[in-house]
Amino acid sequence: MNLKYGDTVFRMKTITYYKDTTFLTQRQINSSTGSSTLLDLINEHGITGFDAPCGGNGTCGKCRVRIIDGTVTEPAENELALLTERELAAGIRLACSCRPLSDITIDTFASRGDSAVISSTSVSVAATTPATPRCIKVAVDSLPEASILDQRSIFSRIISHDDHRMYHMDPHLLRQLDTLDPEDALVIRDQDIYRRIPAGERICGIAVDIGTTTLVLYLVDLEDGRTLDVYSALNAQKSFGADVISRIAYATESQEHRDRLQQVIAQQIQKGIEQLLGTHHLKSSSLMHITIAGNTTMLHLLTGAETAGIAASPFIPVFTEALSCEASRMGFTGLDAVTVELLPSVAAYVGADITAGIHTCAIHRSPQPSILLDIGTNGEMALSVDSRILCCSTAAGPAFEGANIACGTGGIHGAIDSVNITPEGLTYTTIADEPAIGICGSGIIDALAGLLEQGLVDYTGRLLGPDESDHPAIREQDGNPVLLLAAGGQHGVQDDIYLTQKDIREVQLAKSAIAAGLLTLMGDALLTIDDISQLYLAGGFGSFIHPQSAGIIGLIPRKLIDRTIAVGNSSGEGAVRCCFGSEHLQDTLHIAERCEYIELSGHKQFQDLYIQEMMFELEE
Amino acid sequence: MNLKYGDTVFRMKTITYYKDTTFLTQRQINSSTGSSTLLDLINEHGITGFDAPCGGNGTCGKCRVRIIDGTVTEPAENELALLTERELAAGIRLACSCRPLSDITIDTFASRGDSAVISSTSVSVAATTPATPRCIKVAVDSLPEASILDQRSIFSRIISHDDHRMYHMDPHLLRQLDTLDPEDALVIRDQDIYRRIPAGERICGIAVDIGTTTLVLYLVDLEDGRTLDVYSALNAQKSFGADVISRIAYATESQEHRDRLQQVIAQQIQKGIEQLLGTHHLKSSSLMHITIAGNTTMLHLLTGAETAGIAASPFIPVFTEALSCEASRMGFTGLDAVTVELLPSVAAYVGADITAGIHTCAIHRSPQPSILLDIGTNGEMALSVDSRILCCSTAAGPAFEGANIACGTGGIHGAIDSVNITPEGLTYTTIADEPAIGICGSGIIDALAGLLEQGLVDYTGRLLGPDESDHPAIREQDGNPVLLLAAGGQHGVQDDIYLTQKDIREVQLAKSAIAAGLLTLMGDALLTIDDISQLYLAGGFGSFIHPQSAGIIGLIPRKLIDRTIAVGNSSGEGAVRCCFGSEHLQDTLHIAERCEYIELSGHKQFQDLYIQEMMFELEE
Repeated sequence: MNLKYGDTVFRMKTITYYKDTTFLTQRQINSSTGSSTLLDLINEHGITGFDAPCGGNGTCGKCRVRIIDGTVTEPAENELALLTERELAAGIRLACSCRPLSDITIDTFASRGDSAVISSTSVSVAATTPATPRCIKVAVDSLPEASILDQRSIFSRIISHDDHRMYHMDPHLLRQLDTLDPEDALVIRDQDIYRRIPAGERICGIAVDIGTTTLVLYLVDLEDGRTLDVYSALNAQKSFGADVISRIAYATESQEHRDRLQQVIAQQIQKGIEQLLGTHHLKSSSLMHITIAGNTTMLHLLTGAETAGIAASPFIPVFTEALSCEASRMGFTGLDAVTVELLPSVAAYVGADITAGIHTCAIHRSPQPSILLDIGTNGEMALSVDSRILCCSTAAGPAFEGANIACGTGGIHGAIDSVNITPEGLTYTTIADEPAIGICGSGIIDALAGLLEQGLVDYTGRLLGPDESDHPAIREQDGNPVLLLAAGGQHGVQDDIYLTQKDIREVQLAKSAIAAGLLTLMGDALLTIDDISQLYLAGGFGSFIHPQSAGIIGLIPRKLIDRTIAVGNSSGEGAVRCCFGSEHLQDTLHIAERCEYIELSGHKQFQDLYIQEMMFELEE
Repeated sequence: MNLKYGDTVFRMKTITYYKDTTFLTQRQINSSTGSSTLLDLINEHGITGFDAPCGGNGTCGKCRVRIIDGTVTEPAENELALLTERELAAGIRLACSCRPLSDITIDTFASRGDSAVISSTSVSVAATTPATPRCIKVAVDSLPEASILDQRSIFSRIISHDDHRMYHMDPHLLRQLDTLDPEDALVIRDQDIYRRIPAGERICGIAVDIGTTTLVLYLVDLEDGRTLDVYSALNAQKSFGADVISRIAYATESQEHRDRLQQVIAQQIQKGIEQLLGTHHLKSSSLMHITIAGNTTMLHLLTGAETAGIAASPFIPVFTEALSCEASRMGFTGLDAVTVELLPSVAAYVGADITAGIHTCAIHRSPQPSILLDIGTNGEMALSVDSRILCCSTAAGPAFEGANIACGTGGIHGAIDSVNITPEGLTYTTIADEPAIGICGSGIIDALAGLLEQGLVDYTGRLLGPDESDHPAIREQDGNPVLLLAAGGQHGVQDDIYLTQKDIREVQLAKSAIAAGLLTLMGDALLTIDDISQLYLAGGFGSFIHPQSAGIIGLIPRKLIDRTIAVGNSSGEGAVRCCFGSEHLQDTLHIAERCEYIELSGHKQFQDLYIQEMMFELEE
């Protein structure tokens, strides 16, 4: 999920396309080879939130997708005209003009509303396994008829499987079982008879990813697992503290504060649910459950649980388990028979966003050691090796989110999101091609990588001054050297946008924390960088980072550049899956149980590595 | 449970005593050999409801127990003086005066209140397996301390086991976990954190057996599985119909009627709970759950589910599954955080009383084929053979409950409960040794057995008249022969008490239905009577029946007399166990899944056997 400092709304959608099969979350669709454009496939399978205003004529240039993996046809003339060289290099293509030549994985981008930002999710194909739907709609007219030869109870006929367990059952619903209408259906949820609905009514769930900054809700079709729509907004708790620690400080003051934070997020989720259901003309009786991922603190704040233990050593949360309760107990109104469930966390700083992310990327199923790295204010990471999953969290600080950076900003329209420094000068792109208003995480990393490559920053992180370099972007401001990214008064840019020495120091601190965390995990697992087969970059900013630049500045080991995949919001994707599929939920519960948390505070090797990784590694 | 036609209250208690170990439901206690009297052991282990008014001096004769199995010391002088010959022959002894000489199994009898009746429960020793308590009280001051080396969440510390599942959790309770008092405890119920209570508070459950006639509640100590007390009353639904069919007829008329029946039984259970908790000074916060056994119709009426399907072919109930819900949903008030759970049934006429009874008698674990026979208005029976459990239900009619019998009565004080006919005359005993007021089931069977043995009834069931026999008890009344049991105006008896030809016909119908059911089950399992290792007689009347007489009249196969054990209310005992122990509940759920129901209506072999068994088999 990209960061943004305005209350924006956007859609996002993941498609992983195979030559012979298309996965839409959990749906696998056979498709003929090479005969259809990507746009055909997208439309054929009812993916919403994907814009193609010209109707696939190849003229508007809006139906952009990114090819993550696999080969497609060469760029057509219209693509060469409508896409920049940089976009083409980054694998951006027009869905209407591009046909698959092999099994491929793609990202789609879809925006909504004026202030929208582009976002995306891509899923590792290996992670996608077929799942049994958690909710099954049983039409009354499909129930086997009772006879002297089949004397099973009505209840047994509906659940139709032998399972010696106790069923949770509301007598109110039980009383209706004898007067069912042939046009009714019963929804079985996690093997309990859960609700009576008209047979024609759709059944849906809501998957939620509560980020410290951003709240995302996904409307999930519980029959086929498709994500029907997405609602996103800045976390409304933000006015009570921008980051986890300040929000905990507020919450710790009193039960009233905790109640307030609880109400704020519950009401915001409820608002999002109402909007999603309304847009799709769904009644609240269609909604079965709400499946929630998020970091440990956000889940505590949603339940109203005390967060003080999270903030101070020894960092003890109230709960890390997966929990469920009725929505009304969590402060939701009008959703009486809906269940709210929180996905499992691991520790105070490794939350359900990570367990859900591990499920999405399936690092625990990889035969070779793999890493999930989720970058936000904290850099949370998990390393799978054999049957173990080691995880830890490093306090990276908010530099990559644009905070504490002189001209920093979140991933909003006009943010500089990529920078290319040559010996002659500097070029950049902005989100939505709007006049630059600041620089966001991926741009900052690109800029620093360029400075290092051009020798304008030395291995200690010192930025050369105009007296030491004649590069045109190196300027002086208030007696200090800066990298001028965009000059005010030109191309619609109001004020100068630049990177300072202090900005570079902020990035140094952040990248060394993350790099040291990665190396500590590997060390604890007795692995070297060469043993790692794949690194998945997740988180709001993870999907936009350029792995090449991240490798150059040492945020990730340089050797892993080619083994790095940006997976976007793997937490949200995991929540969607757990909302839909039994095996997905079980897998995520199992992941949480297997995760071994490594506390880095006081970890000797980590401290050494942290200092060591502060320096930059210059290319030999 | 004994039938009674007055709203009586009584206690009952089961003890199975071993020479070296004492089982109190699930509690196993080491005890020195031979050194203690049974009364010492009973007192030592806190069994309530057992009367010894003289304090063990051997003078009052009230501390009666029945030796089921094993050897004890010879009767002492006071026992010979205070017990009748018949009582001694039946294994009745005084607990104060009797010491075990081997592993033994005993029944205790305990009464309460003036109008009380004696009842008992004995459990097959083989069935008693140790169980894991379903509710565990975790004292806050016993929780492992958090440290940087043990960063588990507070929740994890409380549940203290790895289990990748989703926990049901009320956020209200979650919010309290951070502010626990060292004097608090948390109750974990079926692995969920369920309630916060003061550490010194006891935790208890209520086990319920809803019979068509009698309602019994057991107060169960959930820490050690002991039954602390029993509440019993006539089922208050009785005024809406004495038997299952008439009650279904009333319920089927309207939803209002169903609601009324639902409220009546829920309120009665609630009243019983309040009385039991009050007597033992327990708060409602001590009560964790209510575990309910009963026949299928009674469980339907408790939930308010429609019963019409049960009454008419093909006899389809709404549910047979084990169900749970919050007590408030079942019409209980003031028990908000209490769970109500219904044990699993098999079919319309094989209910949770039978699955619970099978668990109690453990016929499914017997290496040899065994039978459970529960006699009430219906004769319900289950036969275990290898991994199969076959069961069926026969409409025996209410003869054994004293209904449709000229001088019949339930098992109340003054009921003739045993009859002995000699060539010279007839003797009888009554419950509580009070003047005879009628004859109950066990007396009817004894009387008929005596008539057959003395040749006063022929194999067709015809009662000889005074013109055919000079037996002094054979009299004539209104021109028809009768057996005079007690003459009016003598020994405090008001009116003549007798058995008529019509009474004998009623018993013939009842016994042939049950006998034919037993033989049908054996036939379907390809077994003969010789293959059966044990027959457990259960039900209100089952614990008082004399197997010898039952064999003579052909209620049970004559060959099984020596292999027959009366087990009393095996349903209630099963509910108590399921209330307490995880394995007990799991076993009962598993039993219900394994039971194969055999429908006898239209069953060719059953019909043939029913006619065949109508006749009496005279001893060769």
